[in-house]
Amino acid sequence: MKKSLLSPTFRLQTAPGEDRERQVCDTCGFINYVNPKIVVGAVVAVDGGVLMCRRAIEPRRGFWTLPAGFMEEGETVEAAALREAYEEAQARLALQGVLAIYSVPHISQVQIMFRASLAEPGFAPGAESLETMIFPLNDLPERDLAFPSVAWALRDYRRFLAGEAGPFSNPA
Amino acid sequence: MKKSLLSPTFRLQTAPGEDRERQVCDTCGFINYVNPKIVVGAVVAVDGGVLMCRRAIEPRRGFWTLPAGFMEEGETVEAAALREAYEEAQARLALQGVLAIYSVPHISQVQIMFRASLAEPGFAPGAESLETMIFPLNDLPERDLAFPSVAWALRDYRRFLAGEAGPFSNPA
Repeated sequence: MKKSLLSPTFRLQTAPGEDRERQVCDTCGFINYVNPKIVVGAVVAVDGGVLMCRRAIEPRRGFWTLPAGFMEEGETVEAAALREAYEEAQARLALQGVLAIYSVPHISQVQIMFRASLAEPGFAPGAESLETMIFPLNDLPERDLAFPSVAWALRDYRRFLAGEAGPFSNPA
Repeated sequence: MKKSLLSPTFRLQTAPGEDRERQVCDTCGFINYVNPKIVVGAVVAVDGGVLMCRRAIEPRRGFWTLPAGFMEEGETVEAAALREAYEEAQARLALQGVLAIYSVPHISQVQIMFRASLAEPGFAPGAESLETMIFPLNDLPERDLAFPSVAWALRDYRRFLAGEAGPFSNPA
């Protein structure tokens, strides 16, 4: 019988009516549903370039990313995108539409990326960033990107600018 | 000191570097991040109408819904939409694009709805459905819809057919 890490009373078992093993409490029958987590972020267009943040935290400290992060309970995807841009880049955004939805199954993430502009001028590194910068689209820090999905979002943003209709998904 | 329902060793507390209270284990410091859950579904166009399912399970047993359900770990949003349509309506879908992303903060859900057609003919009630049926767009079961977001998706599908560019979001 597989033990769960959650608590000694939890065991991996298939509850009635379920088609897969989940962590179920032997005491009260509580089923601990675990589902993918949502990351929300934005490609922020500024002066023909894109706002990027150099990560101050692990994983991938020192590498460049787009303002994005885990959605919290009790907020909308739009509010999460605005909050993350403020936390990471002290930027106030105006959202313009959904650029892409990426699935990253091996880490159980869904990433929802918006297109945005600055609702008011100015940006600066937040607590989780070492540096914030506008990169021209023809001079992106391609070799120093933090995650594959950052490259996907930048590529799909260029596809959008070239006239392709989004929202985009994972590369084939 | 607020107690957690998760286990006697968990307490609601603000961990170092965090800006909000989370359930943290006093024994090992494990932080139980709780994030919104993702529901994925589809508006399936069939013969000028839309495929709907009458719910066999609570909540809202007996009411009409679109094929949709909770995304599981290890799958993509596209795979989740296909799986749910098969589980609830025994239908094999071809996805055509993202219709809408709805946030339902008070129940901590994000709903991603695709547009789709049948990849092969045929549909039938799955274990969670009492009935599956094609409703013409001018004769939808408006008064017997299971959830507000079902009404939103049907309304936004009509907006899409009328030429509006999606993806759509919550009603204003």
